[in-house]
Amino acid sequence: MISYNSFATTDKLPFGAVLHGTTITFTLNVADVSVPPKVQLVVFQDEHWANPIAQVALKANGKTAYTGQFTPQEPGLYYYFFEIQTAEKTQYYGCINGGFGGVGQLYTDRTNVQMYQLTVMAQIDQIPDWYQDAVFYHIFVDRFNNGNADGHVNNPKPNSFIYGTHQDLPYYVKNTKGDIVRWDFYGGNLLGIEKKLPYLQNLGITALYLSPIFEARSNHRYDTGDYLKIDGVLGTLADFEHFLNAVHQAGMHVILDGVFNHVGADSRYFNLYQTYESNGAANSKQSPFYDWFTFKDYPADYESWWGVLDLPAINKNSSSFHDFIAGGDHSVTGYWTNLGVDGWRLDVADELSDQFIYKIRQNLDRYQDKVLIGEVWEDASHKVSYDHRRHYIEGGGLEAVMNYPLRQLLLDLLNQKITPKDMALQFMTLKENYPASVFRYNFNNIGSHDTQRVLTALGEDKAKLHLIFQLFLTLPGVPCIYYGDEVGLTGDVDPDNRRYYPWGHEDLTIKSWVKDLIELRQNDALFKNAADCFVFAGVDWLGYVRQDKSGAYHICLANPTDHSEIVKVDDVATAALPAELWQKVRSTIAGVTLGAYEFKIM
Amino acid sequence: MISYNSFATTDKLPFGAVLHGTTITFTLNVADVSVPPKVQLVVFQDEHWANPIAQVALKANGKTAYTGQFTPQEPGLYYYFFEIQTAEKTQYYGCINGGFGGVGQLYTDRTNVQMYQLTVMAQIDQIPDWYQDAVFYHIFVDRFNNGNADGHVNNPKPNSFIYGTHQDLPYYVKNTKGDIVRWDFYGGNLLGIEKKLPYLQNLGITALYLSPIFEARSNHRYDTGDYLKIDGVLGTLADFEHFLNAVHQAGMHVILDGVFNHVGADSRYFNLYQTYESNGAANSKQSPFYDWFTFKDYPADYESWWGVLDLPAINKNSSSFHDFIAGGDHSVTGYWTNLGVDGWRLDVADELSDQFIYKIRQNLDRYQDKVLIGEVWEDASHKVSYDHRRHYIEGGGLEAVMNYPLRQLLLDLLNQKITPKDMALQFMTLKENYPASVFRYNFNNIGSHDTQRVLTALGEDKAKLHLIFQLFLTLPGVPCIYYGDEVGLTGDVDPDNRRYYPWGHEDLTIKSWVKDLIELRQNDALFKNAADCFVFAGVDWLGYVRQDKSGAYHICLANPTDHSEIVKVDDVATAALPAELWQKVRSTIAGVTLGAYEFKIM
Repeated sequence: MISYNSFATTDKLPFGAVLHGTTITFTLNVADVSVPPKVQLVVFQDEHWANPIAQVALKANGKTAYTGQFTPQEPGLYYYFFEIQTAEKTQYYGCINGGFGGVGQLYTDRTNVQMYQLTVMAQIDQIPDWYQDAVFYHIFVDRFNNGNADGHVNNPKPNSFIYGTHQDLPYYVKNTKGDIVRWDFYGGNLLGIEKKLPYLQNLGITALYLSPIFEARSNHRYDTGDYLKIDGVLGTLADFEHFLNAVHQAGMHVILDGVFNHVGADSRYFNLYQTYESNGAANSKQSPFYDWFTFKDYPADYESWWGVLDLPAINKNSSSFHDFIAGGDHSVTGYWTNLGVDGWRLDVADELSDQFIYKIRQNLDRYQDKVLIGEVWEDASHKVSYDHRRHYIEGGGLEAVMNYPLRQLLLDLLNQKITPKDMALQFMTLKENYPASVFRYNFNNIGSHDTQRVLTALGEDKAKLHLIFQLFLTLPGVPCIYYGDEVGLTGDVDPDNRRYYPWGHEDLTIKSWVKDLIELRQNDALFKNAADCFVFAGVDWLGYVRQDKSGAYHICLANPTDHSEIVKVDDVATAALPAELWQKVRSTIAGVTLGAYEFKIM
Repeated sequence: MISYNSFATTDKLPFGAVLHGTTITFTLNVADVSVPPKVQLVVFQDEHWANPIAQVALKANGKTAYTGQFTPQEPGLYYYFFEIQTAEKTQYYGCINGGFGGVGQLYTDRTNVQMYQLTVMAQIDQIPDWYQDAVFYHIFVDRFNNGNADGHVNNPKPNSFIYGTHQDLPYYVKNTKGDIVRWDFYGGNLLGIEKKLPYLQNLGITALYLSPIFEARSNHRYDTGDYLKIDGVLGTLADFEHFLNAVHQAGMHVILDGVFNHVGADSRYFNLYQTYESNGAANSKQSPFYDWFTFKDYPADYESWWGVLDLPAINKNSSSFHDFIAGGDHSVTGYWTNLGVDGWRLDVADELSDQFIYKIRQNLDRYQDKVLIGEVWEDASHKVSYDHRRHYIEGGGLEAVMNYPLRQLLLDLLNQKITPKDMALQFMTLKENYPASVFRYNFNNIGSHDTQRVLTALGEDKAKLHLIFQLFLTLPGVPCIYYGDEVGLTGDVDPDNRRYYPWGHEDLTIKSWVKDLIELRQNDALFKNAADCFVFAGVDWLGYVRQDKSGAYHICLANPTDHSEIVKVDDVATAALPAELWQKVRSTIAGVTLGAYEFKIM
């Protein structure tokens, strides 16, 4: 019997991603060391597939193991497997199909071997304290609150529509070709958020993530018109400064949405409709912004985001754009960060070059305690975009990404689309692949302006909703609650997920769950910010341990089914957590009864 | 040579429509009375086509004419021609192709003869003095003025849109099937009109025609929800009473739009969406409104206006509906008229039965000086709808109709689609066909909420616009100006013709033309309310005489072309006006020079 478990520190030490130059010890377990004459660890460096970077002969280590070491010198990804050669045959040990960590499998044909991933960091980032302990609230600004006493909408845009009532459902006004011809607004604004800071503080929120707030034509403002101007519908620069001051006075923080891959066609930079007085790229090749864009046939045909002509794409290598966004105090990120913004969420980070992301990071590092988060939908450790491996979470780039994979795991678990064991495996694989700080402080969500509302995704089942909030608020990562999810707002995908916050019609039961869970989390260092988390599962239940460096821990148990369960521990993949810890945990949980959708902390 | 001219009192006396029981003298002109052995007038009563109601043998009258008389006993329409029999052949004299009055033509085959129309009235209506002298202003209420100091929209409807700015262009929000899914509002209201009464008085306006104001879902409110309630977007009942009082205090009058052919699906009566608490026809067959509607398959399939399911049609013979609308003080027309409303414009009058219109008229006659006007798009004297000849302008019904035929003549004249002679013929035919009071006080327009804006229909040519206003405000009829036309508002057909009044962006030159013309009209009894009008034309110019019973007259000349013209009178169809008058007029106008689009009063 040959085995290896990348999650177990007995087999791979240290666990998970390492800093470049770190020596890693690999141990392959066999039935008897005398049988295989030759065992080697074969390691490839990412994107160098012609030859292995290392072939490490493993040496017998006791009677049932072979051990050897590898020290990656450069940051990036490495992939590895084991070759076991006997007189009769050569076998290979790699990960199981799908690229998961943990226990792997034997392959007889080398061409079929799936390799384990090894993430190697360029540097270990320092995560700001305020961010480590934060509970975020994600506000789609047009839809949260209008702070004007009489409820009027500030400076409505030409050819736009304002909803008759805040209870109206969002609707895209499109022509027969499917183009949006009038943008629709509810009129939420900065003053409205400021007025609700007490509400948010009472809920336990410590930080805000605002959807874009710069001048734009649309209600979402991902079509930036002017990066250096607060959209008039939201208020003035003075309103924003007042808002920032109020946020900080309340001991809270705020990050902005940085949309740096494309601009609006109706922008100061492209100026397709000549809304702005000075020349944009579409008006003249002498425009200072001309080289930001890629014209196929000037001026009508140009590169745009996903072919949406309303969003001309920025040339990924435009150094003048990169300087405009991230070149010092007077750049876009410099200007607003200097004003007091605490960090940025980079829209479509996949589409930005790594060098641009590093430059933004460096610009933020001119200030104290700023965070940089990226929009990535998949496992960000091995994301490929435009045929290039992305290195934005290996240190010096993004400190976190939007944790959509966790959202999907939790929804799939509660909707019976994956088993608890699937969940444990995939969760632990993320933990292994991500640098520790990225995993620990990842920007978790269970819904955003780009997904179905969580309650809708759970079939409007409030028992499931309660359980997902319990998991979400006790698992590692920095939770970010999408406005309204805490009071049971429903909605399908865009635009239905962008309803106005239901002031006066909140589900107060759900709100009390969320408030209590945030309070639990924030008053318990293990939940708030424990170093470690081990997830494991039985047939119909999920468990995890949150443990700090002192060894203190909590056990959480969840029953994601509609029937009660008795915890049976015999088939648990024990190697997901240290053997000694597992011995303690199993004795605590064995035989425990969990009601339908019950969550228990032990 | 055989001739007859129905417009000439030498040939037909009296001119035009007559009261039943009136004896009419017909005179056919021939070259020599000795030639044709037999001339007879053949008269048919409308809808009795099997045999003539009269065959009157005409007798020689002098050397070149045959004369005879006919006395229609019953009101309605009659049609006539002349039969001229000689030894060799029988000929017929009827009107020219198209049913025009005036000079006719000979036919050799009786089956081809087109007959002259004779309109016979049931009674001669008394027209209220205030209406005779009125200059109306037609307000599409959502689009005129918001009277709230802060500009907020009163009580926006659920799932509606409010325009971002008053300069936005109207837009129907439709789904991919073409159904309107959100109604769009600018938020004009009753207080807004009240605040602009000084503006309207300064312009010379004396009466208002308001688009529907009763509770409804849409912005146009032709989909009535509750006939007894002012729409909340417009204000309250108290607001309406205050408005009415202000109108009357200003010496002005106001008529409402009566939409009595259909209601909204979302109404108290049909209640498809159960918006109203009590049962509507769609909710229960026991509903008191059930018999107002015609269900083909209860409740989903029902008769509706032009197949628009949002507008369930009223059963044309529902006496309970007729009573509801017109049965005394507590009926719909009774209630609002009693409150002070000065009259009604009946929407789609063609679709209402004559009996229903008479009943409404009788209900209004319970009060003093109320008017009843109908929406009819064609020559209302011989309108057929649903296979029945309509008798609504023969006395005791409508006092006027919306004069769309005049609008079309004026536009066609200025857009060179018809010649001045065509215009004169068609205008005089209308004059002949209509009862005198209907023609004299017809509800003239050059644009409405159902047509292109006049300036747009004239290719945005302001010279043409000036001329059309000059014609419109000096011709017979009660002029009704569609809000904004007086300040150069443009717009294509619905919804573009329903833009918000351009407060602050008015074309003040156009406004001064209109104001001056109204002043001219109102200060000159001949223009304001002269008994008669004779229109005549040369090749490229149009003329008309406004004459009162004393014989005083004005001559108006118009050049509808883009080049100057010298008036040549030799080819004028002289018989359009009395010979003696024509002698005076021709000597005045012969040789007069008219610049391009020039209008002269002599």
